[in-house]
Amino acid sequence: MHDYYKQRRDNLRQKLEQENLQALLISYPTNRFYLSGFELHDCQCNESSGHILIQKNGNDILFTDSRFLEVAKSLWKEENIIIYQNQIEDIRLYLKNSIKGKIGIEATIVSHNFYEQLSQGLELEPAEGLVEELRIVKDDKEIQAIKQSVTLNHKLFKWLPTIFKEGMSEAEIAFKIEMFFREHGATENSFPPIVAINQNAARPHHLPSNETKLIENCHVLIDVGARYNDYCSDQTRTFWFGEKIDSKFQEMLMQVQEAQAEAIKILAPDLPCCEAHLKAVEIFKKYGVEKAFTHSLGHGVGLDVHEEPRLSTRSKRLLKPNMIVTVEPGLYYPNYGGIRWEYMVRITENGNEIL
Amino acid sequence: MHDYYKQRRDNLRQKLEQENLQALLISYPTNRFYLSGFELHDCQCNESSGHILIQKNGNDILFTDSRFLEVAKSLWKEENIIIYQNQIEDIRLYLKNSIKGKIGIEATIVSHNFYEQLSQGLELEPAEGLVEELRIVKDDKEIQAIKQSVTLNHKLFKWLPTIFKEGMSEAEIAFKIEMFFREHGATENSFPPIVAINQNAARPHHLPSNETKLIENCHVLIDVGARYNDYCSDQTRTFWFGEKIDSKFQEMLMQVQEAQAEAIKILAPDLPCCEAHLKAVEIFKKYGVEKAFTHSLGHGVGLDVHEEPRLSTRSKRLLKPNMIVTVEPGLYYPNYGGIRWEYMVRITENGNEIL
Repeated sequence: MHDYYKQRRDNLRQKLEQENLQALLISYPTNRFYLSGFELHDCQCNESSGHILIQKNGNDILFTDSRFLEVAKSLWKEENIIIYQNQIEDIRLYLKNSIKGKIGIEATIVSHNFYEQLSQGLELEPAEGLVEELRIVKDDKEIQAIKQSVTLNHKLFKWLPTIFKEGMSEAEIAFKIEMFFREHGATENSFPPIVAINQNAARPHHLPSNETKLIENCHVLIDVGARYNDYCSDQTRTFWFGEKIDSKFQEMLMQVQEAQAEAIKILAPDLPCCEAHLKAVEIFKKYGVEKAFTHSLGHGVGLDVHEEPRLSTRSKRLLKPNMIVTVEPGLYYPNYGGIRWEYMVRITENGNEIL
Repeated sequence: MHDYYKQRRDNLRQKLEQENLQALLISYPTNRFYLSGFELHDCQCNESSGHILIQKNGNDILFTDSRFLEVAKSLWKEENIIIYQNQIEDIRLYLKNSIKGKIGIEATIVSHNFYEQLSQGLELEPAEGLVEELRIVKDDKEIQAIKQSVTLNHKLFKWLPTIFKEGMSEAEIAFKIEMFFREHGATENSFPPIVAINQNAARPHHLPSNETKLIENCHVLIDVGARYNDYCSDQTRTFWFGEKIDSKFQEMLMQVQEAQAEAIKILAPDLPCCEAHLKAVEIFKKYGVEKAFTHSLGHGVGLDVHEEPRLSTRSKRLLKPNMIVTVEPGLYYPNYGGIRWEYMVRITENGNEIL
């Protein structure tokens, strides 16, 4: 296990050379976990569980507080663990006394206050996306874990429509989804379940309510994911509940699924990510509905449910083998509702594989 | 509902006067929710769901992205919602065109990068703890919600020992706790359950494992909380499992409970928070075990499970009526295990009330 993480740190060390950094302080929880196995989550979003210092010379340090000492010792050489009382000042003193040269900091992650206080007497440099660049391409073990997570998601979608009943609220459905995931081995939701009936489905990130309930002949959008073996899944389906399927629903569903299928067709190594998004837009334009597609086509999934690469107009990246992305076009009309359909797709050597 | 949040914003506006700020940009999710009811959580810890601008002139703005437009409209005047494409740049342009004077920023919350980019052409000023200062004293509605949350926690602790069985793993117990909370109306854990058997209990933030199981005559530390009606609970008990209670366990438990009781006795308005911590240390010193008490005595609880005030040596605050804090002394010995005992306590006009 330790070797696995050490290999990743060594890969990162090569990037330090290229960036002319003596060291890089890792503060983003997912990056920290990726490089060490130490604490995937912070205690609270304004309360760090620790930082990892990657040094060019190989002397990597884990900074944390006393609550985590025993956990840290199970993952890290004890002489390389520093327990802080005063987080920023204790890290600053270590850096000041041990490192000559530039130290990279995750400046889109650490707070302005953290950066400013840490910088006193030190040569800091904002260094973004170095770990994310490693995380973006998944290794075999990660692909395996993600596939297991998606398998659970498929199982959920097979089971879910069988329990739908008139009068069941969005919140009840969300609760049943969560229980299903947890009882089947997920450690948590990868994000709060989105369960949205009719007009609520026009809100791409709707929070399930107790008031809105399944009625005969309605549509219900379900966008959910589980964390299984540390890795996230993320899929959406929009179901029709009742006997008489609305023609508007059928028309929208056909447009959304066509946009999805056409976008997936072109996913392959070296495709610019923005092209995938533009392909979906192109299909929607054919039907004159492109304004109802209000978000980007998809995003990477891994230890984070939202990570690089983004399938959006602004992305300048090219796809590579073993990137894993969602493809999730949607159409939203505030007075009617919304439809979204989402798959997870792995880029292969020649094309792609729907998970 | 809207008036409730508006009142809080008006209270905050008075602080802007004192701080000589024209406006304050709120980026911390809990603060944002406290002032608006909009999204208690961000999508992911590196992905904001929105920011709220509180202006001295009363023209408060909600900045968010298109996914949240419909939710935003249900809580906020539509003409005061700004949907950004490019988060930082769009907020910056609004601030630049609308505000003359100093704008406060939560500099311990927003990233260094966010602050630096936003500051171009603007007069920003780090402004900390203004909303936290309001949140620290709970109103009647909040006290009611917290009491309901703690009630559920008490129910859990009454039920839990009845299901303990030899061979049950920490992870299984944690799962049952989570299910119990959710089935009784909690929306989530207020933090990941800590279930720690014997030596694992020496790790104050131990993650439950599948390997460590209840054996005849062991101790098990349970530190858990639920979010109920948006508010958190947080309590710890350390149970003995089996017939033959260990004398070491009894001795430690007695010391911990004495430290807790003595600290609670002195909790009252105008007590310096550090004094509460020092009282527990004083008791532990009497037994020569103070070095085994490795964390601070407690913390505020509300919308966040960890918030102000901190009952620690470094806190310079005085207690006030309707602050709600945990009191959670513990003793930890890596080769034996650990005991912690935690209550939630409300400061009253004359003293305190254990919840």
